[in-house]
Amino acid sequence: MSYLLGLCLFLHSQLVNAQDSLKYIDAKTLVTIGKAKVTKQWSQRIDSNETVTMPKVVQGLAKNSAGIAIIFETNSPVIAAKWTLAEDKYIANMTPIAHSGLDLYCLKDGKWQFVSPGRPEKGALDQSQIIIRRMDTTMKQFLLYLPLYNSVTNLSIGVNIKSVIKAPQKVAVDKAKRIVIYGSSIVQGASASRPGMAYPAMLQRKLGMDIINLGFSGNAKMEMEVAKYLVSIAADCYVLDCIPNQTPKQVSERALPFIKYLRDKRPNTPIILVETVIREHGYFDQQVGSNVRKQNENINKAYLQLLKENYKQIYYIPAMAFMGNDHEGTADGTHLTDLGFSRIAEAVFKELQKVLGRK
Amino acid sequence: MSYLLGLCLFLHSQLVNAQDSLKYIDAKTLVTIGKAKVTKQWSQRIDSNETVTMPKVVQGLAKNSAGIAIIFETNSPVIAAKWTLAEDKYIANMTPIAHSGLDLYCLKDGKWQFVSPGRPEKGALDQSQIIIRRMDTTMKQFLLYLPLYNSVTNLSIGVNIKSVIKAPQKVAVDKAKRIVIYGSSIVQGASASRPGMAYPAMLQRKLGMDIINLGFSGNAKMEMEVAKYLVSIAADCYVLDCIPNQTPKQVSERALPFIKYLRDKRPNTPIILVETVIREHGYFDQQVGSNVRKQNENINKAYLQLLKENYKQIYYIPAMAFMGNDHEGTADGTHLTDLGFSRIAEAVFKELQKVLGRK
Repeated sequence: MSYLLGLCLFLHSQLVNAQDSLKYIDAKTLVTIGKAKVTKQWSQRIDSNETVTMPKVVQGLAKNSAGIAIIFETNSPVIAAKWTLAEDKYIANMTPIAHSGLDLYCLKDGKWQFVSPGRPEKGALDQSQIIIRRMDTTMKQFLLYLPLYNSVTNLSIGVNIKSVIKAPQKVAVDKAKRIVIYGSSIVQGASASRPGMAYPAMLQRKLGMDIINLGFSGNAKMEMEVAKYLVSIAADCYVLDCIPNQTPKQVSERALPFIKYLRDKRPNTPIILVETVIREHGYFDQQVGSNVRKQNENINKAYLQLLKENYKQIYYIPAMAFMGNDHEGTADGTHLTDLGFSRIAEAVFKELQKVLGRK
Repeated sequence: MSYLLGLCLFLHSQLVNAQDSLKYIDAKTLVTIGKAKVTKQWSQRIDSNETVTMPKVVQGLAKNSAGIAIIFETNSPVIAAKWTLAEDKYIANMTPIAHSGLDLYCLKDGKWQFVSPGRPEKGALDQSQIIIRRMDTTMKQFLLYLPLYNSVTNLSIGVNIKSVIKAPQKVAVDKAKRIVIYGSSIVQGASASRPGMAYPAMLQRKLGMDIINLGFSGNAKMEMEVAKYLVSIAADCYVLDCIPNQTPKQVSERALPFIKYLRDKRPNTPIILVETVIREHGYFDQQVGSNVRKQNENINKAYLQLLKENYKQIYYIPAMAFMGNDHEGTADGTHLTDLGFSRIAEAVFKELQKVLGRK
């Protein structure tokens, strides 16, 4: 009996080992989504040549892989990944999985379903991990999100040595449909629990379109250099969620010229303006509360001015449409969690459906 | 003009400095909730004398401050905290705020409203931080949750040197009503974004009762030594969410004697059984999927057996009542995020309302 058990355990371990005999292929050879243009360094959002006139911090943040994902097909029972991070990060309001990890989804009945994350190990830049194993061996389409707040200098995908892995013939994301979201840390993905829970990634799965995440933590202050980059991207819609880090005065000074420039250069592209999240601590810290109110008053004034000047296809989402009424959508008063992100994703999704339908 | 501006800035900075002249008082002198009994080391959940017969890991985890909170009243415009952590933690699926930080709420119109967290700094055991400032100076009641996955050897609360801070005369949590929740890492709070978003803490605010968080990460395997401790706590209800880390065989062997022992020693205390969360990666990893199904089959069998044996006041929450239908409630397939925790809190809340009403 114990001999039989021993044999079973041995065979089982051989099976697992056989499943886990891996070959790795470079992620660059698969399908990439979430990038507006080809860049010299594959996993950065904007090529360094195009950020030279932007603020220094934005130049750095443009190298983070937020919103970038790969799509592939495999019949492997196991999926692994090796990835190299640029920095050993610590972020008090984010999980390591979100800032430096991976997030795997699988296409099931036409919908992207969460599979499992790639957990970064403490202190290591070279990461290696089996993300999922013991799957059935039918051919499936997978989507793997890259880290939100780190840069990935190398990424390779491991599958069983006998399995097929390739770029899908029919990719389940319509790369011809593209939404550009320009914003702050919230757009970049703080404080999602994993890369796929940042709201641009949620929208990507809900809409089946290519979403370009141009979220820049602590930034997105409507600099004209960024406007020039935005208009260089052909998009079906621009979402401007870039109020959080501007002073109310900056909003007053910058919003109109920024938006008018976009409209001038891209006359047929709808623009959705999103108010800043309400800072939850602003219900107590009176200075923060007053500042947030003024930020939103000023973007609202700019919006009304555009309507008055007869600008068309400018849309507006007030913060109250996505904050909920429980004051529980943030990790720290500012940064939305998966709960808060579900709410903003739903509000922007509804608006996008209207806007894209109207076009 | 620039002179006037300079003067304003000077006066403003003096005001901020005046607000931020702090006195600190030991948290132990305020009201503590979330603890079943007094312990020698104030911030641990179970006194080390009472854990000696429990598994070694549980002995350690009982020192974590999950679920413990303090309540105080102050008219200070600023609230700060100094806290000393036992360990410098790294947890891939948790934010540092959740595992090692603090979480402040304020009583507003009879409800607890989130204010702001205490963010731990990287690598430090001695933490010091201003949590909120620039509040109006009416007297308010505050609730401060301690870290979920660390132990706090010291905690003191800072307020303005001229302000009052004291234990409230009328505490907004009914300490005479007590729910004990025994469970795994999920009960302990992985992967809430901050301590107040663990589901026992959500229940505490929803019910206004004292909730005892006996969540032990990687554990809660229905050891009889733990049953003996549970029955030593007078409770209005026991919630047993302790299936996740047991093998299906352990569930079959342990559930009935464990539950019967509780019922025998506490004949009038209702018991709510909670199925294990469905592992999201178990929809792909066939071994994990099959294991989870068996765990829940076996706790369900135990429940039906108890009904058959005419046990009363045993209640049951199936996993499908709280998993949602989007597969998006977890950080890693197992551990609920604020989104997943909102769902389980709602399901357990509804059951508790029924159960406590029926008593």
